[in-house]
Amino acid sequence: MKKSLGAKPLALPSPVWVIGSYDSHQQPNIMVISWGGICCTTPPCVAISIRKTRSTHTNIMKHNAFTINIPSRRHLVETDYAGLVSGINFDKFSATGLTAVKSSLVNAPFVKEFSLIMECELLHIIDIGSHTQFIAKILDVKADEAVLGNNGLPVAEKVDPIISSACDSAYYALGDYLERAYSPGMALLEGPQLWTLKNS
Amino acid sequence: MKKSLGAKPLALPSPVWVIGSYDSHQQPNIMVISWGGICCTTPPCVAISIRKTRSTHTNIMKHNAFTINIPSRRHLVETDYAGLVSGINFDKFSATGLTAVKSSLVNAPFVKEFSLIMECELLHIIDIGSHTQFIAKILDVKADEAVLGNNGLPVAEKVDPIISSACDSAYYALGDYLERAYSPGMALLEGPQLWTLKNS
Repeated sequence: MKKSLGAKPLALPSPVWVIGSYDSHQQPNIMVISWGGICCTTPPCVAISIRKTRSTHTNIMKHNAFTINIPSRRHLVETDYAGLVSGINFDKFSATGLTAVKSSLVNAPFVKEFSLIMECELLHIIDIGSHTQFIAKILDVKADEAVLGNNGLPVAEKVDPIISSACDSAYYALGDYLERAYSPGMALLEGPQLWTLKNS
Repeated sequence: MKKSLGAKPLALPSPVWVIGSYDSHQQPNIMVISWGGICCTTPPCVAISIRKTRSTHTNIMKHNAFTINIPSRRHLVETDYAGLVSGINFDKFSATGLTAVKSSLVNAPFVKEFSLIMECELLHIIDIGSHTQFIAKILDVKADEAVLGNNGLPVAEKVDPIISSACDSAYYALGDYLERAYSPGMALLEGPQLWTLKNS
């Protein structure tokens, strides 16, 4: 018997992403979000949700662009700080020592020190309630050579992303590699008796 | 200097969620998704993206409801299997031995054996491209008593969720607890000289 916990946004895992944007004076800002995720493969799109009162909300509405910067565990302090203060009053790049680099593809800055970033162009704005969801096309992914594997793609352990738990409002590290996708489930396909065809 | 990897949905981390739905004959089905995330706090909402060809897509369009079932590491085989075959041809509950329980709130089944589930009512449908995004209101979260902490909320380590990496198409475990949110960044607030007020 499961216990009812009420209507709450208690998902696991949630990402910890740093959103880069410019204000109306082209001053770079960063904020942290955990409400978001990839939302389409073709075209590659990502969705992030932001409260209307945040300066990043204003910035995205103005420039139709943002970057997603994936922090590593070693940038936990800078990342958490970006969620503590508002870009309206604070120059968060200066306070953290992080470096804003202007994207050549969209009018938004990315964080030089973070190993994996995405440059995003706004496609859809969905007003949900406390949060506005921005769906954006990923125009390019850029990564430091140091986090790339033999196949030329980022290796999760090298990126060392931070994971958020909405259940206890805490940060976690990425854990052990378990298995390749579409692999462990093959065990249930091996015995023909387990192929439970409907209506057969 | 970062290397350009092109327009790809390479985010970290992504969730591994099992979506429960009924077909037009009220037969329960499950599928696995990694494109999704919480998208609003008030009302609590979640977004999941599904290809139009999947039977879960048809089911959600019909019943305006689904459940999100968060698998633990011990259900990796059953979870991966749910992503290997189609609900059009296979009775995945029967094949995995998992138990479908009808939600009393929405017309969708949840997975009894999974410790943390959400019952969701469809709010918005956004056609993005290869994938349709379904935004749904979380009507209730239900959890096994065994995964709850002293505050009555689920403890991430006890839920033991699976994490997906789109970069290498692999499953990972949740790693070490790092810090509470809004805590490590306080270090950058302690010295007044670090309060870099804009225009001051």
